[in-house]
Amino acid sequence: MRIAIASDHAAVDLKAELREWLIEQGHEVADLGPDTADSVDYPDYGYKLASVIADGTAERGVALCGSGIGIAIACNRNPAVRCAQVSEPLSAHLARSHNDANVIALGSRLIGTEMAIACLDAFISTEFLEGRHQRRVDKLSNPNC
Amino acid sequence: MRIAIASDHAAVDLKAELREWLIEQGHEVADLGPDTADSVDYPDYGYKLASVIADGTAERGVALCGSGIGIAIACNRNPAVRCAQVSEPLSAHLARSHNDANVIALGSRLIGTEMAIACLDAFISTEFLEGRHQRRVDKLSNPNC
Repeated sequence: MRIAIASDHAAVDLKAELREWLIEQGHEVADLGPDTADSVDYPDYGYKLASVIADGTAERGVALCGSGIGIAIACNRNPAVRCAQVSEPLSAHLARSHNDANVIALGSRLIGTEMAIACLDAFISTEFLEGRHQRRVDKLSNPNC
Repeated sequence: MRIAIASDHAAVDLKAELREWLIEQGHEVADLGPDTADSVDYPDYGYKLASVIADGTAERGVALCGSGIGIAIACNRNPAVRCAQVSEPLSAHLARSHNDANVIALGSRLIGTEMAIACLDAFISTEFLEGRHQRRVDKLSNPNC
């Protein structure tokens, strides 16, 4: 799977760990930065990630900041993105099965690396259920409907 | 505080409980529905809630669905909304202090009523820190910047 990953300064270390894990799982990973822990603004990296989902360069995205909340809001400004901020794998599973989430947001100050990997694993491996969920997901792509 | 609350069918009972708690705390609450547990689409109620935040009718919003994820995505389609999906009070606190969140999303199938109230309490009582966070929040209002 082609996966893009982006963060803010608070999550550069977690980004490196999740990037390595994804590569070990055989995925093609594009790291959109930042490369250092110098202070940046999470919306800039959220919008950057959203744009590569919207243009199809990446099939899935991983968005990281201190809480996961700010970068998730930024990603969801783009109607092509369905970003779920989660802290445990059940939510990651539901985000895929019910909401066809294409971006997962995680908080580096809220959860540890093992928990982040468990969330990411559920996000990567769970299929969308379609059926009645499809109509709702379609409405998320057309916010003015 | 003028607070609007909306859900999907999975969270009508939690909506009634949180509405009562908010009224007990002295807030003015607008319940945007639904009124029954008949199946509805969460984006419809998310957009409805976002519109009353955007036009200033409500100062804060409470968005509920089974996981909180779908309705949070819908709310965040509106650049006037900063909606945080949370499952515990620390995230609700950070959503206010760092992200100036004006809507909280909770999952009725993930957390119990007491935990939902603890999240809501943190969301209502925590002030935004401004400072370096203000520039980032401003960027969330201008997704094309």
